[in-house]
Amino acid sequence: MEFKNVANVKFVEGGVCAAKGFRANGIQCGLAHAGASVTKKKNDLALIVADTECTAAAVYTTNKVKGAPILVTKEHLKNGKARAVIVNSVNANTCNADGVEKANMMCELAAKELGISPEDVIVASTGVIGQVLPIEPIANGMKELAEGLTYDGNARALEAIMTTDTRKKEIAVEFEMGGKTCTMGGMLKGSGMIHPNMATTLTFITTDAAISEELVQLALSDVVKITLNRASVDGDTSTNDMVCVMASGSAGNKLVVNEDEDFGKFRNALYAIMMNLARMMARDGEGATKLIECSVSGADSDKTAETVAKSVICSSLFKAAMFGEDANWGRILCAVGYADADFDINKVDVKIGSEKGVIDVCKNGAGVDFSEEKAKEILSEEVIEIIISIGAGPGSAIAWGCDLTYDYVKINGDYRS
Amino acid sequence: MEFKNVANVKFVEGGVCAAKGFRANGIQCGLAHAGASVTKKKNDLALIVADTECTAAAVYTTNKVKGAPILVTKEHLKNGKARAVIVNSVNANTCNADGVEKANMMCELAAKELGISPEDVIVASTGVIGQVLPIEPIANGMKELAEGLTYDGNARALEAIMTTDTRKKEIAVEFEMGGKTCTMGGMLKGSGMIHPNMATTLTFITTDAAISEELVQLALSDVVKITLNRASVDGDTSTNDMVCVMASGSAGNKLVVNEDEDFGKFRNALYAIMMNLARMMARDGEGATKLIECSVSGADSDKTAETVAKSVICSSLFKAAMFGEDANWGRILCAVGYADADFDINKVDVKIGSEKGVIDVCKNGAGVDFSEEKAKEILSEEVIEIIISIGAGPGSAIAWGCDLTYDYVKINGDYRS
Repeated sequence: MEFKNVANVKFVEGGVCAAKGFRANGIQCGLAHAGASVTKKKNDLALIVADTECTAAAVYTTNKVKGAPILVTKEHLKNGKARAVIVNSVNANTCNADGVEKANMMCELAAKELGISPEDVIVASTGVIGQVLPIEPIANGMKELAEGLTYDGNARALEAIMTTDTRKKEIAVEFEMGGKTCTMGGMLKGSGMIHPNMATTLTFITTDAAISEELVQLALSDVVKITLNRASVDGDTSTNDMVCVMASGSAGNKLVVNEDEDFGKFRNALYAIMMNLARMMARDGEGATKLIECSVSGADSDKTAETVAKSVICSSLFKAAMFGEDANWGRILCAVGYADADFDINKVDVKIGSEKGVIDVCKNGAGVDFSEEKAKEILSEEVIEIIISIGAGPGSAIAWGCDLTYDYVKINGDYRS
Repeated sequence: MEFKNVANVKFVEGGVCAAKGFRANGIQCGLAHAGASVTKKKNDLALIVADTECTAAAVYTTNKVKGAPILVTKEHLKNGKARAVIVNSVNANTCNADGVEKANMMCELAAKELGISPEDVIVASTGVIGQVLPIEPIANGMKELAEGLTYDGNARALEAIMTTDTRKKEIAVEFEMGGKTCTMGGMLKGSGMIHPNMATTLTFITTDAAISEELVQLALSDVVKITLNRASVDGDTSTNDMVCVMASGSAGNKLVVNEDEDFGKFRNALYAIMMNLARMMARDGEGATKLIECSVSGADSDKTAETVAKSVICSSLFKAAMFGEDANWGRILCAVGYADADFDINKVDVKIGSEKGVIDVCKNGAGVDFSEEKAKEILSEEVIEIIISIGAGPGSAIAWGCDLTYDYVKINGDYRS
């Protein structure tokens, strides 16, 4: 699956290390939880460090159950500044009495090794909920982790944040701002427990652009709404979701402090990163074999369009039909119909498409004749488009989801062991 | 799985034919849709007829896409009277330009054969959406269908409304009202596309009790909220859902016209029928191996308790864990946490139980030690209870769901063919 183009940005290599002055590393410190199969040898602890202090912003899960790292990171980002990210997989450090203490210890351990303040460390965890996080492996591994930091360590860090992910999800772009070339890169972890409700995954984004605390937060809060918050794998909003951005200013552009043209360029680059990460996340949904991109237009507002698009990509029946490559458009219309939004169902048109073409399957709320053979051919592709028009209004939205497969059930039938 | 007891009712045999004066029949008229495998020989057309005119009430899907039969039945029930139900499976008669015409024809064909008015016929359809309903098989089969009506034809009718159902879901109770013994029975179709949002299935209930149009509607609207609307299989609200009740008055009780003690008895019997049908429906959710009964107490209101209970039974991750018999309580707490309701997550306790016992898995929002062996034993049962307390308030609710299995995906990967 290729990146989707966005105007005025150029895709480059390097993920979270693409921007100037960011080092990263990942190691296997040995957090494997009780009963876990040890056949899976993978990194479980990552560190990202900026050479200079960054302005930083984050968006967090809206789940009432919040992982302890979320609480600690919120505190640390109150001043809009950060230097490093410490993150582990395997154990979510959530619903444990000593969670906050452990999350603070992670920051302190990292800070000590890096010679920075613990308040400048962003901490995140992902994995099983409700098992006490053993701090010893992290303490013991910190020196090796810090010593191994390199300006091309993004792949090692990325491996460390993956859980049931099967694909590596990282991206970087170059863009021009104020006459300077800036770079922005990001990596994302996320495969299950993903549902649109503020940032729905762990995502770390780094950039060498110079931008104020207020505006990096504004851009992030804005872009998350139309990217990660429009992707769903299984309707479950995780307790540990977080997306954060660190902007170092090393690119030398004039500091962005207003919602001006440069801000627009920054926001556009962030959109290119996060939209593509959202697509990659949906494509790598647990057990998924297909990315479903549902676009809705003609709505009275973007909000209405979003509600309808999400309703479709969240429908279990529709998702199972996509796995079966079955053009059961009745299920699409059914999901459009139960969306909690106001529109005339008799004006709804539905097309299905992919690289193999696009066909009409429903017009004015009723079925139209189409070639089942052509539909099969279209649905045999990896990226499927569902194109819905619900009227003549100006509102539109795109949402991303995936198919529902045997493997989703297999992966989640016994995740803890 | 046994019926769940309700005070003051006695379970009896007979489904929709249990009450005095109701005949039923079901035949295979041959509605198999294009491409359908014809290996499955089953009834596809059912008729239920009362000897006398009944007061009648119904509740319908809230999906904006409404099957044509819903529109026609709504018209026919405006006067609160009915004599018969005609219902087919295989084809939902939804999203077709000629849907209303065909639904009216079904009523006319049945009425003509029975010598009654078409306006006294309730019509319902279930099956694939968006394929034109062929009326010929129904027209050709109507004579045989009507001639075969018997006072013990409930099983034949029940078979005709089943789609992917694997279990026969019917029930009947006797209860006393005004010194007379009354009987009420019902049958339910429903396996997939089931989500709480008004009646979430096709359900037909008959009774020989005498009750006014207004009060039968009041009782039904009331009871559906705490029974069928609290069951979910897959989060998809069907286009064709309907539950209707016909009350003939043949039992000879004094007509219930007020919300008095007799009304309470009627409502209680209806609850016994619909609560058990809701449980049976969830247990027979597509691909399901288990019934999950989630009870929430201590909420500030019943509404809050309901929101939390539904959030849990709708969680795909939780459902997959139940299939895997994995006591991953973190997923329960996660679903409690993202429920759209106001409460203190730090006061949440969770127990899991079954016939094999009950254990605490979470107290005050944090995990407690429990025996994984005992948890496995509890979760190996067919009926699983999730018992949640979220505070000290008076509100409580029960919701019913099922596990998410390979077979759900299999059944829905290619439903149309």
